[in-house]
Formats: sequence, structure tokens, C-alpha cells
Amino acid sequence: MLETRLDLDRIRAARQVIDPVFLDTPLYRCEALEPLLGCSVNIKLETANPVRSFKGRGTEVVADHLVRSDSRAVVCASAGNLGQALAWSGRRRNLDVTVVASRFATPAKLDRIRALGATLELVDGDHELARDRAAEIAHHQGIRLLEDSLDLETCEGAATIALELVGSLEPNAAVLIALGGGAMATGIGYVLKMLAPDVEVICVQPHGAPALTLSWHQRRVVTTETTNTIADGVAGRRPIPEVLNDLLLVADDAVLVEESSILKAIRLLHDQAGLITEPSAALGIAAVLESPTRFTNRPITTIICGSNVDQSKYRNWLTA
Amino acid sequence: MLETRLDLDRIRAARQVIDPVFLDTPLYRCEALEPLLGCSVNIKLETANPVRSFKGRGTEVVADHLVRSDSRAVVCASAGNLGQALAWSGRRRNLDVTVVASRFATPAKLDRIRALGATLELVDGDHELARDRAAEIAHHQGIRLLEDSLDLETCEGAATIALELVGSLEPNAAVLIALGGGAMATGIGYVLKMLAPDVEVICVQPHGAPALTLSWHQRRVVTTETTNTIADGVAGRRPIPEVLNDLLLVADDAVLVEESSILKAIRLLHDQAGLITEPSAALGIAAVLESPTRFTNRPITTIICGSNVDQSKYRNWLTA
Repeated sequence: MLETRLDLDRIRAARQVIDPVFLDTPLYRCEALEPLLGCSVNIKLETANPVRSFKGRGTEVVADHLVRSDSRAVVCASAGNLGQALAWSGRRRNLDVTVVASRFATPAKLDRIRALGATLELVDGDHELARDRAAEIAHHQGIRLLEDSLDLETCEGAATIALELVGSLEPNAAVLIALGGGAMATGIGYVLKMLAPDVEVICVQPHGAPALTLSWHQRRVVTTETTNTIADGVAGRRPIPEVLNDLLLVADDAVLVEESSILKAIRLLHDQAGLITEPSAALGIAAVLESPTRFTNRPITTIICGSNVDQSKYRNWLTA
Repeated sequence: MLETRLDLDRIRAARQVIDPVFLDTPLYRCEALEPLLGCSVNIKLETANPVRSFKGRGTEVVADHLVRSDSRAVVCASAGNLGQALAWSGRRRNLDVTVVASRFATPAKLDRIRALGATLELVDGDHELARDRAAEIAHHQGIRLLEDSLDLETCEGAATIALELVGSLEPNAAVLIALGGGAMATGIGYVLKMLAPDVEVICVQPHGAPALTLSWHQRRVVTTETTNTIADGVAGRRPIPEVLNDLLLVADDAVLVEESSILKAIRLLHDQAGLITEPSAALGIAAVLESPTRFTNRPITTIICGSNVDQSKYRNWLTA
């Protein structure tokens, strides 16, 4: 048994409370990408749902727990996708949802949070300041603070993705997972290590936001002063110790990729796969572009975890 | 009972032989489109699969029948999506697949047909000439001719989409279906009329390729001399009488839309829904744009039936 905070029975139970619109997402081979990447490419698509990211899996579990415990309010910090998903899950259960975000967050994400009826508070700083402010609000108002990646519901929700992968993975497969706070990587990694232990679990982060990857390699929490990446969804600076501990047990590797590779991956996914991806969702393909020999002739699976982009920026990325 | 060529038991049986990668596709509400369209918008996404269109549902049924009857070869005419899907379904069953297409067909579609191992023959004319040539090849070689929309497998495959819709449709709902040869419209329309008879079944075709819509309104086959539309997937000129007969029984309306509306719909789906669509897949949204009062406050469902586009053209459509 792996001594993580995660548990297969709880993950299977989480699946039971998640709205089916987030479950059993498309998983398919995308041969048009293969000549360019030199490996067999499988797409797990987490964007064809009402919030266009995988985060609904976790927020459904959170919101279900809140309702069962008679709690009616919750606050979270978010780069945009968690907040949007929590707003969606909360609205249908009549929960009061407050989202704290950086005023530099992707406007398209903030617009959707507002449209879904959540209270949105912007802070004049980055995601870490938003985390501090969310904690303050929770303390003052006496409401539930949802902390992405620390709170197990977020990891368990993401882990349900892996329940939908294990049946299709060959032993020499690699699964490439965007690494932000770590909920998706620890959740999926845990299930794979339990049910498909030969599969290589590779986390991918940008060089411009490397804190958790550096921490994984040094086996201790490493923070950074700033972040500088287009991959807004994974741009944290202060890894959470409990999450790092889990990640050390379930990840086989954590790699960093250049911004230019992320851009190239976004374009490949657009042109060859017909998919609009946000930068975080293109990290797996970026990693293959940077290390082609590592993956030659192997089957890889990458999770396309979000498609919430600002259109003006996105069109620039397509032509950059 | 509706006196069409279709049958619910056969459609349910078709579902059993279709590779699951084409089934149970995403169905979700896309609220970001709603303020712009004035109605509740549900997306049925048929592009997140190995051939990026709904056509795999039908070709799986065809290929299964061929194998059961010990036939090893098949030929079809295609604007590109049917051929790609037949190549995919045939390859995994060791069938010899020949596809005949217009040399003016979308190059990205033709590239995929070749990449999937089918024999591709191009004719110096439009889709109707490709149909003639495919029939000639079938006759000379004594192999199965697959005729889209005429051959029931293509209608039954498409009809399985509707089995996945009926549970979610309210009585005042409208389902908007791209109208080309008629397989999708007659297949989906038949299931809806049988299982959700209050739902309005609306077929949508471009003004630039109106033959089947004109035929539906005049209740007789009307052919046209030419087609002129970016919606390559629905650009036929010679409706098939048997298909028209079925369509007359299952469609509540057939409407024509302008090219400018198709372009606007493509852009809306890109910007607001995060979806890359080929023009045929945007016809439903184009119809709502042209008749907003018809759909005000009603729930509509549109089938995003394909995403195979040429990138150069697509980028022009985004900025046109």
C-alpha cells in the first residue's frame, strides 16, 4: 500500500456523487499527432462539459460534502477553473460561493465565474495572495475554505479520471499530467500506481512556474519569488507540504518545459487534433516535443484538462 | 408507427456493434452561448473521437455487416468524413476500403483517408460525380457499394445519437440537425419522433446547397445544377428519393441559412464554446442566429457533427 492521503475506496465513492456530465469523458487515439511526435498519442478530453475543465469532478465532491454537512457557504482561491467549477456545483445546490482570484487572472475565466452567480473578489497580486485572502474570508465568516490540492475532495475528484484510464493502458505507457497545485497529479498518479503500477506517471510544469517540480526533485518544499508563464492554471509559487509528500510517492518524474514548447503544443493540438486548449492543457504534448526519444514508439496518454482561454490571446498564440 | 425505412430495434442493435469510442458522446449545456442566442443551448459533441465526426457510428455498422457476410471490400463516395470513418472501421477489420472523392474536397480530410490506409480516387468534378464513379467501381469489381443515406446502416448509425438524447429533451425542445444526404436527419429524426414526439426536429442546410431542403418543401425530388457553400460536408445536388420519403415523415421543418451566418456560428462556437467546428457542424447555430424569435427561451440541442477543417481556411474563417 502507498502511504499517501488518498484511498481507492474513497475515490470510487467520489465518482458516485459527481454529476455524470463530468464523467466518462472521451478517451481516444489521435493519429494525426503521431507522425509529429513519434509516439502513439491518446487524448483524455476534460473540456467537453459545462465548465470546460476537469475541475468539476472535484467541486462536485466538495459541494456534495457541504450539503451533507448542512454547510451553505464556501470560499476558494482560484486561477479561474476551480472557481468556475465550484460556482457551477454550488449554484445547483443553493450554496453561497465566493471565489478569490488575482486581478491578473484570465478575464474569460473571471467572466464565467460571475455569470455562474458566484461572488468574485479580486486581489492586487498573484494566486498566492488570493490564497491568503480566501483563508482570511473563511476565518472571518466562519465558512468552509476549499484549498485546491490540499483538500482531499479536489484530489479524489481528479483521481476519478484515472479510473477511466486504467483499463486502456499498456505496461510501457506514459501518462503526462499538468502539474499545478498537485491535485490532478497526486490523484491520477495514486490510482495509476495502485491499479497500473508499470505505467510511468510524468508531471509537467513550465520553467516559468517550477516550484512543485523543484520541490519534487529536492524532496523538500521549494518556493519561488515569482512566476512567469502563459500557463495560468499551474502558476503557483508555494507548494503544499502534504501534497508534495503524496507526489513523491506517486510520480515517476516531474519535468519542466519552455514557453515556446507550450505554444508549439497549443498549435499542434489546434491544427492536428482540432482541439482548443489552454496552456496548462498543452503541457503534456510540450513535454513530448522536448524529449522525443524518451517516448519513441511508446503509447502516451495526456489529459487535456482545460480550454478556457482569452480569445485575443489565443489567436495570438496560434500565429506566434 | 411511422412508415419509414427505419426501425427502433435495428437501431438499438446497431448500437451494440459500434466501437464504444463513438458512443455516449458529451452532451452538455453551453451557457456562454446563451446570452448571444437567447435560448438554452445544449451541445452534442461528435468530434472527440479518432475520425472527428459522427460518421464512425454508421461505418462501424457497415463494417460489422461486411465481416459477417464474409465480404472483404467496400467502396464509397465521400466528401471526406464518411471516407475517413469507413477507412478507420475497415482497417481494424482488414477490409479493403476504396474512397472516391472530388479533387476539390477538403485536403485535410483526404490526407486522413490516405493515412488510414484506404485507396483514394479523386474525380475531376463534384460529389455527385464521385457517387457515379463509386457505383462504377463497385459494379466492375463486384464489391459492396456503400451509399451514404441510402444504405440503412448509415442512417441507423447516426440514429444512435438520438438514443443518447431522448432522456434529456423537454417537450418544447428543438433539435437542430445538419442536412446533407439525409442520413443524420432521418436517423435522428426517426428516433425522436418515436420516443420524444413533441420535440421539434429541424433540418438545416445552406442556401448554397439547398436540394434536399427544397425537395422536402415541395414533397418531390428537386435537384440543383451546382452548389456553392463552405459547408463541404452537406454539399449534395441529387437527393435520394427513399431518403426524402423518410425525411418527409420525421422532420418538422427544413431551413436554409446564409454563408455569413455559418461563418458567424463557426466563430461563436470557437470563441464562446471553445470548439473547432467544420461548417456543416455550425449549421444549427447558424439557424438560431437567423431566426432568434423562433427559439427564444426554448431549449435547443445541436449536434456538432464534425471538426475536420483545413487550417488555412479555418483561420481565415475566424478572422473573416
